[in-house]
Amino acid sequence: MIKKRKDFFNFKIEKKLRDKNGKEFLGRVGGFETAHGIIKTPAFATVGTKAAIKGLTVEQLKEINPEIFLANTYHLFLNPGPEIIKNHGGLHKFSRWDGPIMTDSGGFQAFSLGAAFGKNISKIAKDDTDFIQTKKNENKTGFAKITEDGVAFRNYKTGEKLFFSPEKSMQIQQDLGADIAFAFDECTSPQATYEYQKEAMERTHRWAIRSLEEHQKWEKKKESFLEKIKNKIQKNEVYPQALFGIVQGGRYEDLRKESAEFIGSLDFDGFGIGGSFDKDDMDKAVRVVNEKLPENKPRHLLGIGEPIDLFMGVENGVDFFDCVAPTRMARHGALHTENGRLNIKNAQYKNDMKPIDEKCQCYTCQNYTRSYVNHLIREGEMLGMTLTSIHNLYFIVNLVKRIRQSILEDNFFEFKEEFLKNYYKK
Amino acid sequence: MIKKRKDFFNFKIEKKLRDKNGKEFLGRVGGFETAHGIIKTPAFATVGTKAAIKGLTVEQLKEINPEIFLANTYHLFLNPGPEIIKNHGGLHKFSRWDGPIMTDSGGFQAFSLGAAFGKNISKIAKDDTDFIQTKKNENKTGFAKITEDGVAFRNYKTGEKLFFSPEKSMQIQQDLGADIAFAFDECTSPQATYEYQKEAMERTHRWAIRSLEEHQKWEKKKESFLEKIKNKIQKNEVYPQALFGIVQGGRYEDLRKESAEFIGSLDFDGFGIGGSFDKDDMDKAVRVVNEKLPENKPRHLLGIGEPIDLFMGVENGVDFFDCVAPTRMARHGALHTENGRLNIKNAQYKNDMKPIDEKCQCYTCQNYTRSYVNHLIREGEMLGMTLTSIHNLYFIVNLVKRIRQSILEDNFFEFKEEFLKNYYKK
Repeated sequence: MIKKRKDFFNFKIEKKLRDKNGKEFLGRVGGFETAHGIIKTPAFATVGTKAAIKGLTVEQLKEINPEIFLANTYHLFLNPGPEIIKNHGGLHKFSRWDGPIMTDSGGFQAFSLGAAFGKNISKIAKDDTDFIQTKKNENKTGFAKITEDGVAFRNYKTGEKLFFSPEKSMQIQQDLGADIAFAFDECTSPQATYEYQKEAMERTHRWAIRSLEEHQKWEKKKESFLEKIKNKIQKNEVYPQALFGIVQGGRYEDLRKESAEFIGSLDFDGFGIGGSFDKDDMDKAVRVVNEKLPENKPRHLLGIGEPIDLFMGVENGVDFFDCVAPTRMARHGALHTENGRLNIKNAQYKNDMKPIDEKCQCYTCQNYTRSYVNHLIREGEMLGMTLTSIHNLYFIVNLVKRIRQSILEDNFFEFKEEFLKNYYKK
Repeated sequence: MIKKRKDFFNFKIEKKLRDKNGKEFLGRVGGFETAHGIIKTPAFATVGTKAAIKGLTVEQLKEINPEIFLANTYHLFLNPGPEIIKNHGGLHKFSRWDGPIMTDSGGFQAFSLGAAFGKNISKIAKDDTDFIQTKKNENKTGFAKITEDGVAFRNYKTGEKLFFSPEKSMQIQQDLGADIAFAFDECTSPQATYEYQKEAMERTHRWAIRSLEEHQKWEKKKESFLEKIKNKIQKNEVYPQALFGIVQGGRYEDLRKESAEFIGSLDFDGFGIGGSFDKDDMDKAVRVVNEKLPENKPRHLLGIGEPIDLFMGVENGVDFFDCVAPTRMARHGALHTENGRLNIKNAQYKNDMKPIDEKCQCYTCQNYTRSYVNHLIREGEMLGMTLTSIHNLYFIVNLVKRIRQSILEDNFFEFKEEFLKNYYKK
């Protein structure tokens, strides 16, 4: 029997996070059903920007067993283009990842590869100097120009003029065919003023409504098409797509609350928490947002993957994470271990016969010495980057799975304390 | 029971190549037993220069199923150094490739990364202009200085002064622990004069004797050690190493014959045919060498991997091949197919839903479209290079296996004609 949209995307909360005294927190363990499987939350999405995890085959990724795969709309729009992926039957067929897939909206890249391109602006501001008001806080900066209609930007490789609108983003994401799409938003610079953040947030809210309307139009078309062909197909080759709205508001608590209330009131299947944060206040920002968002829908903290932030996020009600850091770090030899980070290129590992992390169950740690990995990374061998990427992804994906398990076993806070003590030596 | 040196390295000829009229050729099908398995010949050795096939895990390589793996002594001597590999228990443990391994002598790299470094000199001369006599045909050129004792050269990365002698090459190769080592030789430039080729060949012959004596010394030490510990070990952790002598002589028939006779008269376990060839005369050069070499020992044509040359080599009595071309080409998108080479980066493959080669059984062709591979290679994704390397290695390794099978089935010449017609469109 063919499943329809109404059969999916119900977020089932299995258990809520409580401390030993029974005090309830925002955190929870849940499950989100898609046509490609149930995503057990909290979960870390591995990032395959261009429909491939850098250096890994799908089989190697399956061994790591992430709950979900995130691909970037902006990059795939540029190359190979959504038509080619649609011709394959969507990202699942194109990449052969047959588990759940999500695509972002392209808004972050229109910012980071447009306005912020080459300016070394991170999503997280380290201190107040990042917030100094500059003339750059204008609508027209670098490669990107933002209007009510959308974002005009230039291809970061060819310089070609391009345009993204909420409607365009929805159409592209329908072609890409992920299980979860995101509404089109404006991701502002952490340097932006309060006034600009407010203006951008309000525009993002108007774009959220336009995204939702456009998305619903495509989903209805798909459902009526499915109705017509229901006797001809055996399984869901045509499947529904969830749409997540994105909360913005930068580092301002009142804007974050306002955005969470507004976006939370719309008919999205879940939510993303986007934009820039002040590192010291990220936990508070996430908390105030999640207090406002409807409890019965999942929340994705976009682009965050540092261990301490994963614990913080889960504690404060985050269900999904994604981040390029595990693979990017790995390619440069920076590796996660239970005892903190190490850089495998260091001379001290040249003749070290231990695995990267003695407690780790990943393919790399089960099979290779630090010495071999040191040799490969120092020599720039591709296999070295594959082995370190496998390790870091396994470490982070499984850290979030262990956090999930700790909630089920009522020892989240003990696990958090122990892990952070070993990892950060605090 | 512990096996000793005498239990290995007997080359068993299973069948000789004959045409339909029963005429016998130099070609043959055979088997060469090592402590890590029998190498079924003719066989193509996949090249993992730095103890890793570029972009492939050992499991991915096992799926391709090459008979043998070749690593480069020169590169491993520089990094990580033979001591570290010895500490792991040799290359098999270091890389986890548990099939047969061979290491070259370092002589070719002392030439190509020394005298010829940056001069764009290939092993195969395309025409006579490559042979113009120049002042470069001297003993002291570029980074390398050749004396009777050995080769003084500089690390091509750091500039550090280093020295290889026949004895040093044998000691390093014992530490690396491959199943097959090569005698230390001087690989001359195709630009060298007759006089220099002769001088270099005669020096290579003296080095062959020194290599053999040094190698036998180490092998005897290992055998007497094995004798002492025979009651303590269950299986061959200490295993014998074969030594292949190398025939030189450049493009001169009389020198090739002389070299083959001399090297062939020594107590090697097999032979390498090294140095530079004139493309048009390579078949003749290989034939005259193999007519002189003892029939009951295997022959390796070093550094050759173009399809037409594989057929030529087998027909003229070559048992082993190796070449970096399949993976090097693959990383740039140049792919073998039954119908010749294609470059997957070309725009015509952007939306091509077929596999790289419809007849190919490799992982890449069984799972991915040309369109996906085109996208990955154009975008510089590591996975793209992994997928194309898997394909090209599978193609060449299996081409040699198919050539082997064609001899067993008495249709070598038909297979050769059919394959070359399709591949080269001649």
